[in-house]
Parts: sequence; structure tokens; C-alpha cells
Amino acid sequence: MSAATPRFIEIFDTTLRDGGQTEGISYSVDDKLRIARKLDELGVAFIEGGWPGSNPKDALFFEQARKETWNHAKIVAFGATRRAKLKPEDDPSVRALVDAGTDVCAIFGKSSVLQVEEVLRTTLDENLRMIGETVAYLRSKGKRVIYDAEHFFDGFDQNPTYALQCLGEAHQGGAETLVLCDTNGGHLPWEVAATVQAVQKHFGPAVRVGIHLHDDSGCGVANSVAAIHAGAVHVQGTINGYGERCGNANLCVVIPNIELKLKLRALPEGHLVRLHEVARFVAEVANFAPNDQMAYVGESAFAHKAGVHVSAMQRHPDAYQHIDPKRVGNEMRVVVSELSGRANIVEKAAQLGLTNLDQQLGARVVEVIKAKEHEGFSFEAAEASVALLVRRLSPDHRPLFTLHDYRGMVNRHGDRQVAEATIKLTVQGHEVHTAAEGNGPVNAFDTALRKALQPTFPQVAQIQLADYKVRILNGNSGTGAITRVLIDWHDGSERRWSTVGAGTNILDATWLALADGYEYALTAAQPAEAKESKA
Amino acid sequence: MSAATPRFIEIFDTTLRDGGQTEGISYSVDDKLRIARKLDELGVAFIEGGWPGSNPKDALFFEQARKETWNHAKIVAFGATRRAKLKPEDDPSVRALVDAGTDVCAIFGKSSVLQVEEVLRTTLDENLRMIGETVAYLRSKGKRVIYDAEHFFDGFDQNPTYALQCLGEAHQGGAETLVLCDTNGGHLPWEVAATVQAVQKHFGPAVRVGIHLHDDSGCGVANSVAAIHAGAVHVQGTINGYGERCGNANLCVVIPNIELKLKLRALPEGHLVRLHEVARFVAEVANFAPNDQMAYVGESAFAHKAGVHVSAMQRHPDAYQHIDPKRVGNEMRVVVSELSGRANIVEKAAQLGLTNLDQQLGARVVEVIKAKEHEGFSFEAAEASVALLVRRLSPDHRPLFTLHDYRGMVNRHGDRQVAEATIKLTVQGHEVHTAAEGNGPVNAFDTALRKALQPTFPQVAQIQLADYKVRILNGNSGTGAITRVLIDWHDGSERRWSTVGAGTNILDATWLALADGYEYALTAAQPAEAKESKA
Repeated sequence: MSAATPRFIEIFDTTLRDGGQTEGISYSVDDKLRIARKLDELGVAFIEGGWPGSNPKDALFFEQARKETWNHAKIVAFGATRRAKLKPEDDPSVRALVDAGTDVCAIFGKSSVLQVEEVLRTTLDENLRMIGETVAYLRSKGKRVIYDAEHFFDGFDQNPTYALQCLGEAHQGGAETLVLCDTNGGHLPWEVAATVQAVQKHFGPAVRVGIHLHDDSGCGVANSVAAIHAGAVHVQGTINGYGERCGNANLCVVIPNIELKLKLRALPEGHLVRLHEVARFVAEVANFAPNDQMAYVGESAFAHKAGVHVSAMQRHPDAYQHIDPKRVGNEMRVVVSELSGRANIVEKAAQLGLTNLDQQLGARVVEVIKAKEHEGFSFEAAEASVALLVRRLSPDHRPLFTLHDYRGMVNRHGDRQVAEATIKLTVQGHEVHTAAEGNGPVNAFDTALRKALQPTFPQVAQIQLADYKVRILNGNSGTGAITRVLIDWHDGSERRWSTVGAGTNILDATWLALADGYEYALTAAQPAEAKESKA
Repeated sequence: MSAATPRFIEIFDTTLRDGGQTEGISYSVDDKLRIARKLDELGVAFIEGGWPGSNPKDALFFEQARKETWNHAKIVAFGATRRAKLKPEDDPSVRALVDAGTDVCAIFGKSSVLQVEEVLRTTLDENLRMIGETVAYLRSKGKRVIYDAEHFFDGFDQNPTYALQCLGEAHQGGAETLVLCDTNGGHLPWEVAATVQAVQKHFGPAVRVGIHLHDDSGCGVANSVAAIHAGAVHVQGTINGYGERCGNANLCVVIPNIELKLKLRALPEGHLVRLHEVARFVAEVANFAPNDQMAYVGESAFAHKAGVHVSAMQRHPDAYQHIDPKRVGNEMRVVVSELSGRANIVEKAAQLGLTNLDQQLGARVVEVIKAKEHEGFSFEAAEASVALLVRRLSPDHRPLFTLHDYRGMVNRHGDRQVAEATIKLTVQGHEVHTAAEGNGPVNAFDTALRKALQPTFPQVAQIQLADYKVRILNGNSGTGAITRVLIDWHDGSERRWSTVGAGTNILDATWLALADGYEYALTAAQPAEAKESKA
């Protein structure tokens, strides 16, 4: 590591601006404010809120943000250099940037001859003036300015002299940080590191170099870490790696790499542990399924399935973990599957707090899990069903509701389809009989069950199904095979849980997973069982 | 790039072995064979099929694989070094490796003092003998041996002398490639590159160094590329980056980086273009939603949403793309508008082999496919449904049977379940009305349909369902969401085909896929349509 390597790396979050370019994401102003507050709690240095010159929704965000108190982060407005042949003060987009009322602005400009000539269609000299004059104008309005050199790496590869001239204009104009962007995301770590070093050498150690990298060659994180290792002091990225095309550098992975691998600082002392929660929260607000395999903060990031790994973990906790998952707020899990050895079952029982139960009950639980797995259940992704299974084996267990009968019907007459369900169950001592239609039999069952539970448990209205997966198990039995249904749930806040059902009848398997989902959510979680994800 | 950098990099795929450790993945033997055939078509050098010593399902895979012809890939059996204080020939797990009947074996052993002493609980000397003797034994049985040095990077950091001694034993024993594993996945690119260089320097250029890297620091791809840049000639990974915890290095990203960025060779000439299809196919078989943001092969990888990007793309096609997406079989898309239409249609028709159809029918087929994909159908893994769709659009098409009405019923009274179906259809001009019970509604439908078809088509008795998969598409709609049903079929010989159905009603979606399955099988396949997989 070079002697100039800094102790503190500025985290510039652009989840709200570049992250909003993800296919499928469409934030409301309220979504943006909720995410911004969470990022402020996490302690990033900058939150890029949007492009006030490009749409009214972003302008409204800045209006709202001005009314709030931000403890750690500076809110940043994003925009472009002035258009060709206009004064900055005459460009409405530059004026919108001033009007956003933030202390800090980030503006982007071209650094590549090809981009200036073929996309911007202006002269190289005019582009230099556009950069310098826009930065200087914003400085004259009292703004701190971060300069994003778009396509810098491509521009530098093609014509390093001109690319450095562009940066020089921004520096002369008063930009506090020169951010090198790999806009097309195609570079590799050693290329990024070499360019960062060349820029640093050209301007000397007093100039602050930042980076903004994309994941188009699958190296967004590695490129960021390599650039910081090479001397960059400011890194831009997004939570969960959201962003245009393949996304931006994923801050949920970049930040722990900075703190735990490079041993530098990126967040306020003690804040790294919040990262897992922030990742989940942002996924919920963006309405995206969390990526379970995400490094550091994914639900599977410290989940061990191979029997040989689990038995090794029992002998030495670090045998198959590169860090202690608690440092990022995550946890180690043992996945129970048909391929699991004895070690997994024992470890899982311990995680479920079964060590406190008398040995007889503990053994019974393991026996039931194994028997149910033989029937086709799979508990590896259904901790809520495991928790219920344990509860149901306790001598003092009282079920919330008991099913007696159901009937499901689907008819098709020509083009017309009808699905209907009736169910009869006891809810806390009272017999309830309900019926409902649905756009399919599963929906009809679910609707009838909600109808039956709602008078006693009004909170069922919050419970939502997040995902529903079905898999046949013994393919050779044809349509008579055992099917396994896995349902993921959430309650509109950050609580998530998963349940499983299995059987030859797909609707009966669905019923079991549905009933588990409601029963688990409606029973207050007991501490020893609380394996659901924390918010 | 060093002078020793090779021209050809061996791709060692472990989607079936390490990829099977992904939380939520549970392959059937048939799933494994289908994926293996696809990997062979792609042209990887090695396909690691499983660990025959660890479970009977993997042993069965090798038994089946021996009956097939593999054009590009060598099938590899995986196992461990012999247990302490046993002769290799007395270790049942080593014997299972020999019995798997592959030309090539991959075995893993310890390279770290900590792992040997605290996990394996044997002496450092015995571990060295375990490595050397197991490799030599397998060589004496005529096997080519690839040696996986588990935890090599950690072991080398702790005690480079011992780590190199372990490799030396494998080399002396006759291993053709020494594979350095970052088993816990926590290293960074420049660390991996330095260790690869140190090993290469120690053994000299004649020894072949490989790498097996995980994604726990979000650098699985970058570390692989850095290692190859530093001299490694063999890289292990998985399709879509499946694998334990955060997954293995993603070959869908590593391979294009090798070919397009490092300008080396990884696949047979002209095969890179198949990568996008392989990524989708493996996701379907694994029953995982594809990762749209995946570099190179994700559906969003070349999708442009930002207005500023889209207009720049119109001026200069490379303005926001690091490569031409066609090189990996992917395509550019514009998210905000439907302007991309025509190019997509031509591309899609070509992908489906529709170039032989007259232009008008071809355009119609693509239009229907797009409309059906919008409804939730997915044709990547359902070639039989594509073939039927083409047939049905032909002016002279006569359907084998036409459904009028159906009714499905499932009842549960206490512990007793009944599922019943009635269907009314026209079979070659005759109206047929049948009813059947089943152990679930899908089975009842299937039985009623067979009953209706059997008098006219006695060969339905041979038709069997091999796999049945269901996935919800728009999770936010809860139990009212669209479900997609994928059915794999076989006829007891080697003929296999797959069909798809979709809709909000799971039974209706199932009906569509069932009906397609029978209709496809009962119509003589026409050569131009015969996209079914060869066995």
C-alpha cells in the first residue's frame, strides 16, 4: 500500500440517483426520503438525491430534504456541465442545481474525445470551457463541487492528454474531488489502479481522486477496492449494487472490504454492523427480492450446507468463514438439506435453542425433521416451519387454529374460469366456515383463510406473500409425484419468514405452507426461535 | 501480461458439484444430465459431475453419464484425499472415485497448518502422505488427476513453506494441474495474483497452475481474471455463480472476460455466443430466477433506461456499451420505449431457428411469442411448446384434440383427501367426457386426459412426466400472482421434451403445459422443429 493511502475513505451513495436507473425500480419521493434517512443513520458521507434539472420528482425530493436534519451525510444534487454556447447562469439545468439548495453539488462532464465529438457534437475547447465555467459558477454560489469525469477510463485510454486537461479544468474551477468514472463498466482492476495512479501522479498528492465504477465486467467491487488501494479517497456506489445495466459498485460489499480487508475507515465507529439491515431495508423499499448470495450481507453469505463444511465449523469456527458475520450484522446459519450429514442436524438443533430442551424432546424434533424430509419437506429455506415444528412438539402447545375440512374447485367452461374454496376451521375455540373465489385455487384458499382469521386477528391484513415456489420431488411418479411448496412472506415492514409444505396434492401442500405462514406470523416469536430476519 | 501467459485457458465447470451447494438448489439426476449436455455444447473443458463417494444420487449420475457421448468436455468425478491411517485402496470414498469410471478425477486436500491440525486432527506429515499417495493411487488406476488445494491462499499466508510442500506432493504423485483454492473466498485480486506468481515461480513454468475462487469479498470474478493475468491456465467456477454461501466465480462473466478482455481463448471458436442461452437454461433447470443484472448475460446487462444514455446510443452505438452484446448472445434493449422492437424480433426469430419460415409466418410467430412472454410464458427451456406454437399458426394446422370444459375438485375432510377432475374435449371429431380421481388435482387432470386420449392414441401409455416445476413471477401480487409451470417429459426410450404453461390459476397453467406435452408427443416430430434434447 502506498504511503499516501488515506485513513478515511469518503462514501458517496448514489442509490437514489444512479440506483434509480435499475430496470424495474421506480421510487416515490417518500421512498427516496426513507432510504436517505437510513443511509444517514448508516453514516455515509454523501447522499446523491437526484437530478433536479431532469424531473420534478427529484426537485420535490430536495425541497423535502431541506426540512430534515441530517446527522452524518451531506445531501448532494446532481447535474451536468452547462450546454455548449450558453452561460452557466442561462442554463436552466444548472440553475435547477443551484435551486436545489444543497451545500454540495456533483456535476458530470465529458473526458473523452469520442464522446465530445460524436455524442456532444461540440469542439474539444468548448467542452473544456463548459467544465471549468460550470464548476466555477457553482463555487461562486457557495457550493462545494464534486466533479464526475464521465467515461474517464475510456477517454484516458484513447487520449490521456485531453482526459487530464478536462480534469484540470474542474480542478482549476474549484472542484474539491475529481471523480474518475468507468461509465461503461468494462475495465479490470489493474487497469483501474494504473489510471488512478497516473492521475494522482499528474496532479500530485494534494488533489483528491475519487472513483465511480460499474459492474459490466463483473468487477465493480474489485475495481473500487483496487482504486482505493491505489490511492483514491472517495468512492461512489449504491446499496445492493443497483444501477443502470449491470449496476454500480455495490457499497454493501465495498464498505466492508474497505474496513475489514484494507483496514481503512469508511463509516463512523461502530456503524458497520448496521449494513445487513440497510441492505434489506433498501431492497424492501425498492421492492426487489434481496440477493441471498450477496457477499457479506446476503442471507446465504454465511450459510453452510456441505456436511464436510459443517463438521469442520464445529471443530473450528473460522474453518469456512473469511470474517465473523456479526461484524456486518449478519449471522452464521446451517442449512438442513437431504444431503446434510448428522453434523448439520445437530448444529441446526443447537441454533434453534434445542440444547435447552430436555434431551428426549430434542431427539424427537430431529427425528420429526428427518421423517418430514423423507416425505418431501425441505427445511433449508423455511425456518418458520422449523420453529413451528418445535413449538408443536412442546407438551403445552396450543394451536392458534385447527383445520377440519376444505374444498377447492376450479372450473373452465370454454374461455371462462372460476376458482372457489371453502374451509372449515376452529379459531380459538370457535368454528368458522368461510368461502371465497380467487383468480386461481391458491388465491381462493388464501382469501378464504384470511376471511376466517381476520375477525380474531385483524393483523392478517398486513401479511403478504412475497414468493411462491413449487418443485416436484420424485419425477418418476409422473403427476402423482410429491410436490414441495415453499412460500416467502413479509408483513410490509422488514420482517420476512418462509414456510414449507409437501405432499402428492399440490393444493394440500400449499395449504400446509399457507397455514404455517399465518400461524408463525400471528404467534409472538419466542426469543429462542427468532430465526426470522431482523430488521 | 507476463511472457508465460498461455493462449488457452481450461474451463473447469463445477455447477453440478459446488453449484449444488447453493441454498435452495436440489438437482435431480436428470437435471444434472440436462445441464451437463448443455455445458458440453458450450464447450467447457471439464464438467465436475459430483462426489460419488458422498451420496448415491451422484454415483447414479456417473453411471448414466458413461452411457452418453461427450463432444467437448471430460466428465470429472470429485473426491477427497484418503483418510488418515488408511491405504487409498482401503478408503471406500477413494474407491467410489475409481468406480465412477471417468477418465479424470479431481481430489481436494488440505494445505493449511491450521486446517490439518484443528479440523483434520492429524499430523502435518500424515497429511502430506495422504495427498501424495492418493494422487499416485489414482494415477496407477489410469486416471488423470486434478489436485484442488483447499484453503491454499489462507494456508500460504500462514505458512508458505508447508502450503508449497502440499502442492509438491500432489505434483510428485502425478497431478496434471495444481489448483489453488480460496475456499473461504475472502481474498482480493492483487493478493491472489501475488500468490499465483509465487507458486509459479517456485515450481517453474512447466507446472500448470489452476484456480478455484469464491465470491465472499465480491471479487470472485476479478480474482479469477487477475490469477489468469498472472499466469494461471485453468479456472474453476459455475454457471450463474451458483455455489456455497456467496457462490463460486461466475463462469458466465469469467469466460467473456478471458476471451474479450484478456484476448485469450476459453471455448471452441464461435461458441461464446451460446453463453446467454446456457445461463438462462441452467437457471430454469435449477428453478432459480435469472439474475437480470448479471454482467454480459443478464437481461438488463445491455438495457438502457436513462434518457441521456438512450439518445447518446442513437448517435453512437458504443457510447454506453463496453462490448457488442451479440458476442455473448445477448442484445441491447431500450427500457423506456418500445423502439427496440424490430431488431429484437429478427434476433429472436433467428434464435428459434425460424429463418426457414416464410417471412409473414415468421413475423407472426415472434409476435405471439412476445405476447405470451409478456403473459408469463418462458420458452428458453420449453422447445416443445415453441414447436407447437409454430404448428398452430400454420394455416393447415388441425389440432389433435380441443378442450371444451374442465372441472377440478380437491376436498379434505379431517385426514381424508380426495382430488377429482372431469374434462370434456373433442378428439379427432368425437366428443369425449371423462372423469378421474388422483392423489392431487394435477394427477387427476392428467389421468382424465390420458383416459380421453387412450382409445384414439394407445401410445399415451408410454408418455411419462419427468419433472414439474412452478414459479411465481410477480411476487408482489401475493397468491394472485402469475405462475409459470414447466413440465419435462419422456417416453421411456430416449426421447425427452419440455413444455410450458402460465396464468394466475396454477391448475390452468398446468393444464396448458400438460396438453402441450401430449399433443407434441402424439404428433410426429417434423425435422425443422426437432429441438427436443438428444439423449
